Amino acid sequence: MAKAKKQPRPKAVTPKGFRDYFGEEVTQRRHMLGQIADVYHQYGFDALESAAVETVEALGKFLPDVDRPNAGVFAWQEADDSGAEDKPGDWMALRYDLTAPLARVYAQHRNDLPNPYRRYAMGPVWRNEKPGPGRYRQFYQCDADTVGTASMAADAEICMMLSDTLERVGIPRGDYVVRVNNRKVLNGVLEAMGLAEGDPKRDDVLRTIDKFDKVGESGVRELLGKGRLDASGAYIDGVGLSEAQAEPVIAFLTSRAEDIVGTMTNLRAAVGDSAIGQEGIAELEQIGALLAAAGYGSDQVVIDPSIVRGLGYYTGPVFEAELTFEILDEKGRKRQFGSVAGGGRYDGLVKRFTGQEVPAVGVSIGVDRLLAALREKGRLAATPTGPVVVTVMDRARMADYQAMVSELRQAGIRAEVYLGNPKNFGNQLKYADKRHSPVAVIEGGEEKERGVVQIKDLILGAKIAESATLEEWKERPSQFEVPRADLVSSVREILDRQDG
Amino acid sequence: MAKAKKQPRPKAVTPKGFRDYFGEEVTQRRHMLGQIADVYHQYGFDALESAAVETVEALGKFLPDVDRPNAGVFAWQEADDSGAEDKPGDWMALRYDLTAPLARVYAQHRNDLPNPYRRYAMGPVWRNEKPGPGRYRQFYQCDADTVGTASMAADAEICMMLSDTLERVGIPRGDYVVRVNNRKVLNGVLEAMGLAEGDPKRDDVLRTIDKFDKVGESGVRELLGKGRLDASGAYIDGVGLSEAQAEPVIAFLTSRAEDIVGTMTNLRAAVGDSAIGQEGIAELEQIGALLAAAGYGSDQVVIDPSIVRGLGYYTGPVFEAELTFEILDEKGRKRQFGSVAGGGRYDGLVKRFTGQEVPAVGVSIGVDRLLAALREKGRLAATPTGPVVVTVMDRARMADYQAMVSELRQAGIRAEVYLGNPKNFGNQLKYADKRHSPVAVIEGGEEKERGVVQIKDLILGAKIAESATLEEWKERPSQFEVPRADLVSSVREILDRQDG
Repeated sequence: MAKAKKQPRPKAVTPKGFRDYFGEEVTQRRHMLGQIADVYHQYGFDALESAAVETVEALGKFLPDVDRPNAGVFAWQEADDSGAEDKPGDWMALRYDLTAPLARVYAQHRNDLPNPYRRYAMGPVWRNEKPGPGRYRQFYQCDADTVGTASMAADAEICMMLSDTLERVGIPRGDYVVRVNNRKVLNGVLEAMGLAEGDPKRDDVLRTIDKFDKVGESGVRELLGKGRLDASGAYIDGVGLSEAQAEPVIAFLTSRAEDIVGTMTNLRAAVGDSAIGQEGIAELEQIGALLAAAGYGSDQVVIDPSIVRGLGYYTGPVFEAELTFEILDEKGRKRQFGSVAGGGRYDGLVKRFTGQEVPAVGVSIGVDRLLAALREKGRLAATPTGPVVVTVMDRARMADYQAMVSELRQAGIRAEVYLGNPKNFGNQLKYADKRHSPVAVIEGGEEKERGVVQIKDLILGAKIAESATLEEWKERPSQFEVPRADLVSSVREILDRQDG
Repeated sequence: MAKAKKQPRPKAVTPKGFRDYFGEEVTQRRHMLGQIADVYHQYGFDALESAAVETVEALGKFLPDVDRPNAGVFAWQEADDSGAEDKPGDWMALRYDLTAPLARVYAQHRNDLPNPYRRYAMGPVWRNEKPGPGRYRQFYQCDADTVGTASMAADAEICMMLSDTLERVGIPRGDYVVRVNNRKVLNGVLEAMGLAEGDPKRDDVLRTIDKFDKVGESGVRELLGKGRLDASGAYIDGVGLSEAQAEPVIAFLTSRAEDIVGTMTNLRAAVGDSAIGQEGIAELEQIGALLAAAGYGSDQVVIDPSIVRGLGYYTGPVFEAELTFEILDEKGRKRQFGSVAGGGRYDGLVKRFTGQEVPAVGVSIGVDRLLAALREKGRLAATPTGPVVVTVMDRARMADYQAMVSELRQAGIRAEVYLGNPKNFGNQLKYADKRHSPVAVIEGGEEKERGVVQIKDLILGAKIAESATLEEWKERPSQFEVPRADLVSSVREILDRQDG
């Protein structure tokens, strides 16, 4: 037979922008997602898991005249079932968030779902974007949304739940704050400035408000007016508003007072007699009252006018959870850890499908950022428990070693027998080291005859190796002999001592 | 401004072959995956989570000259980064199982991984196949593999772990069996028949062996010989072997004896002096000895020569976990539930990348089938606990209701306030019903004044509604009044009573 042409070997690489997660990285995330799910469930939210794949049509966000709608998403065209070449198949895509699938699910199943519908979802989403350091094309989100109610109690509830969730996963009060604002107030400010809907200057003003954190009040004044000399020396053109016109923006941005009542008074002044602005303030007041009644203080949730949030679809309250403790950035400078979750009220998503406006409000937690924060604070179990390794001194007695491992596992102890080539015993201990094993068990022929096993405390052994002079360890040898019958109890004793 | 042409509304549908999972379906699966992970972890296996997306090159299985490699997988071509039209981007695909990514991960990270490497993985995989009833294009797998050892102790360990896992998730001993066979024995039988590698009759014989379950010994004899009259009356051509030539197959298929020793004796006879056959039998003996030493009996794991397993890449032991209890199929006929997990030893997967043969053995659990089995056996929590619903009698007092809900949650009770339009109280109770709520709480203005709340036991209420005559319930009204201060303790009391 003619041999097939030899193929070059495939490259063993993750696709660009993707990565593998090993051991602890997986289990820590799984643990945290479980904690978040517990809080969401306690609040009455039900789990929903939709598929990773949606039709591009259902996902939306695409221009209908683009032939290949892959900007920002991973998309492909199905082969046509009928086999006809001229009839193209449907476009499919990987979900880019968990909200677009929720809108599709709600529209599809709305007659069977409770109304209002509280649901939570957790899982990976995919973005076909340029990857960067720490930015991957697959990452986890964890969302909770309430669909079908305009009540501000739903918004207040999400804020409370976000606060509870952060504390539950290990961020103590004082290390986080949930900031709340309202898009209607922002629209009211624009109205008060005389910028009607459709005025191109509205976007310029919004962009300027977003810079408040960086350039401060005076910077915003300059940018709304004639312009501003940048730190780099470049001149940034201003929006070209008069000082009087710019005043509502400044009043809005500086409206945060000592307490909610003071903030509200300032905001009322900022929006003037704009009806939409007044409506937004009334909503914030309702949220504030509900939070206060449920015992949530300003050390957990605050009204903060500087929160804008990028996504265009928010129509009412918006919120953002920030971690306020400082970390050192890659250049060694102190900075606040920043945002780990955000959300708000949106009304248009379900309407795309049904034509009816369905009010909804939700929040999305950036799972990987929150995990990074917990790691930073030392709130994740630092040293994983590797398995007890039963070494192999005599390949023919594998059944003996296997029996030891079974006994240990039955006692609830993570354990394994060495499965590599046992010839070089040093390799077995190196393996145990790589596995972060707490204990190695050794039974050679001589021990077998005498009915004993050797037990090696690998954690203590490592400590002794590090500082051989310490008196206290002279009394505690890292390796000792026990009767075979005492294997499980002796290993248990060492594990308990290592924990304590 | 010219208005954009009005777009037709998108259809709110899951793509064909995909589905949504709600509430309990999600949490039951999550719970089961957690139990399986616990067992795998106990055995020393480490978690691995690779991305859903791999390069088509790394996934393999594709013919290099096929322009669009989408047979069986969801694949797409990346846009080229450079923007040059004539330089096509890489082909990407969704993983179709968890083994192909493992091979890529091991080849990529082998210098950093412990050797041997025990890993487990759980998550969705995708198949671009024609969907059918109960067959979806996204489904869960849960795999454990040991890479880098040829020791039969690894194979035995996987069998033990599979047995432990089934018992852990709720399949009692006696309702399952792990069947073990060895491909080498099968190859030995073919050798003993005088069919050398490359002989086209080998495939015919394998296909016939696979039919043993259906047609029995005499059927196999006919099919290996001249042929057989089908139940439908059609004549099936035989392989055309002489009776003497067919004998090893028959001996092989009927080799299962009362105990392992007997089975082994029969198998030795079936493979004659084929070296590969003898090697396979020696491996089965080793596995049998290790299982016996660890206390696993024939009510858990058995040697069964009729297990073939389809995948071409198995090179040694193969195993399959079957659930042996009977269920009724869609036509009301009794049948065994069948296979829920399978695996075996494979050597070629890593070699594709590195050129070096790396021995490996693993198992994959069909998560959704196992869940279906547990549901069938009534081993999954049947009635989920819906949240306590605090109803809204006065929209202006939302803060009062919110406070009740907070108190309940702080006591660990799942609770929510009704967030829909409160005008029609009947709708609130219908909502509670849809949510499977155990308890509704009611506080109208009159109750508020008197400092009491109404508590409605919805489970008891439903029972009374079903059978209003039962004496025992006359004493226990389904709705009663308690002081506001006793809200939490009274709800707790009802929940405890409902559980008991």
